[in-house]
Amino acid sequence: MRIALLQTSAEPLNPEANLAAIRDAAERARAAGAELLLTPELFVSGYAPVELADWLTPERIADFPEALSAIARETGIAVAAGFPLARPDESYAIAAGLWDAAGDEVLRYEKVHLWGADERLAFTPSSTPPRVAEWNGRRVAFQICYDIEFPEPARFAAAQGADLLLVPTAIDGDSAYVPEVLVRARAAENRIVVAYADHSGGIFAGLSIVAGFEGAVLASAGTEAELLVADLPDPEPSDLERPSVGAGAMYLQDHRPEVYAAWR
Amino acid sequence: MRIALLQTSAEPLNPEANLAAIRDAAERARAAGAELLLTPELFVSGYAPVELADWLTPERIADFPEALSAIARETGIAVAAGFPLARPDESYAIAAGLWDAAGDEVLRYEKVHLWGADERLAFTPSSTPPRVAEWNGRRVAFQICYDIEFPEPARFAAAQGADLLLVPTAIDGDSAYVPEVLVRARAAENRIVVAYADHSGGIFAGLSIVAGFEGAVLASAGTEAELLVADLPDPEPSDLERPSVGAGAMYLQDHRPEVYAAWR
Repeated sequence: MRIALLQTSAEPLNPEANLAAIRDAAERARAAGAELLLTPELFVSGYAPVELADWLTPERIADFPEALSAIARETGIAVAAGFPLARPDESYAIAAGLWDAAGDEVLRYEKVHLWGADERLAFTPSSTPPRVAEWNGRRVAFQICYDIEFPEPARFAAAQGADLLLVPTAIDGDSAYVPEVLVRARAAENRIVVAYADHSGGIFAGLSIVAGFEGAVLASAGTEAELLVADLPDPEPSDLERPSVGAGAMYLQDHRPEVYAAWR
Repeated sequence: MRIALLQTSAEPLNPEANLAAIRDAAERARAAGAELLLTPELFVSGYAPVELADWLTPERIADFPEALSAIARETGIAVAAGFPLARPDESYAIAAGLWDAAGDEVLRYEKVHLWGADERLAFTPSSTPPRVAEWNGRRVAFQICYDIEFPEPARFAAAQGADLLLVPTAIDGDSAYVPEVLVRARAAENRIVVAYADHSGGIFAGLSIVAGFEGAVLASAGTEAELLVADLPDPEPSDLERPSVGAGAMYLQDHRPEVYAAWR
C-alpha cells in the first residue's frame, strides 16, 4: 500500500485556501498511486492556536468535515486530515478524520494531550481513546502531534489491533528528536507503521516521517514543502497470533499490563 | 558525573574469570575518573541460559553479591552488575545490584520480562517494580535487557523520581534497533539518562549506549570489546517542579494515566 503525506505551509484562518491545497495534494497523491493522503495538524484552519482562539465559531468550521468528504469523493483517494471541531458543549477539539475514497467518514479522533499554553486558549483536550477502523485491509487509528510522544495511547491503539497510526502534527525545530526517536520507537515497540505529517515553512520543522518494523525509516522529508510518498509493507502478523515464545520480540504478548497496574 | 560501561565477552559458567574481569574493569574505570561501572546482563555467570539451567544451584551462586561488594569496596568505585540470584522459593531470577564505593548494596532488581524460551528454562520472571535508590546525588533504577523495550516500567521508574536507568543487557545483532531507537526513546520520553551495557563477541551485538536529554547519544560503542566512558549531565529538573505550561515537553506532568486507565 502506498500513502502520501502533505508537508507544506497552511495559511492561518484561510480554510478556503487550505482546502484547495488539500484537494490539489489529493490529486497529485492519487496520480502517484497513493491510496491515502495525510495532512498536518489543524491543516484546514492553519495551525495558529492563539489566532484561532478569537476566530473559531461553530458556524465557521461546521462544514469542514463535509468539505473533506467531498475532496475524498471527488478525487477518488482517502483523505486523513486535521481540523478544528466544535463540540456540542461549545468547547473545541483539535480533531482528525479519515474519509475513504467514496467520501464516507470511517474514523474520527480528538487530541488527548494539548501542547503548552497556546493550544489551551482555543481548545480543550479529549479523554476518549483512539479508536481503530478497518480501511482497505488495514486497521487504522489516529494520534495528533504531542499525543505520539506518550507511549501509552499508541500502545492502547496497537492492543486494539491497529497496524497503522496516522499522526497529523505541528512541531518546530526544537522537536526534531520526536520524529527521529519517538515516532520510530512507537512503530518499533508496537510492531506497527506510524505516519507523521508536519507543516513546513516559518517556525515549523518539516521532517515528516513514516516509520515501520523495528523503527525502520520507510520515508522521510527534509525541512521544505514536499508530498512525501511511502510504500507500506503488509501488516506484521499480530503478536497474539504468533507462536508463544522464541519468535523474537512479541511486545503485545510479553507486556504485562496487569503487573504494571499493581505497582505502587 | 562520569560512568563506565563494560562491553566485553563473559565466559559462560566461569564466575571466577568473570569476577576478575569486573575487578579489572572497575580498576580501569576508576582510573578513568568514573564513579560507577556497569556490566552486561548475567555477566558474573555468563549469559548462557540453556547451560545455566543445568548449572545453577543456590550454593554455586550464593556468594556473587558479596564478591561484587568486595570488588566495589576494594577498587573504590560503585559497581552495578548482572548476576543470577536464587530465591527462597528455589526459583532463579535474572538480577542486578548496585554496590556503592564502600561496598554497601544500595539497590537490587529482578528482571520482569524474560526473553524467549531459553531464559524460561533457567529463570522465572519477577513481578516487583523497579525501585529507585539515591546514589551520589542521582536517583537510580534498574531495567534488564528486554525490560527496556517496554515503555511502561521505565515510565514507572521515572514517575518514582529516577533520573538514571542502568540496563545490563544481552542482545544479538538482530536487535540493533533496540539501542538505536528504543533506548533513546526511553531517555527522551522520560527526560532521564539510560545506560545500556551489552556483551560483545560471538552472537552478541555490542552497541552499548548511553542516551540522555531528547534521546541524545552521550556515548556509544561499536561491536568490539570496549570500556565505554560517558559524562552525564546533571539531572533534568523534574517535570513536577517546572512551570505548569509553556516550558516545552513535560511528559510526567502532561501524561494522563487516570485517563488511560479508564480506556476500554
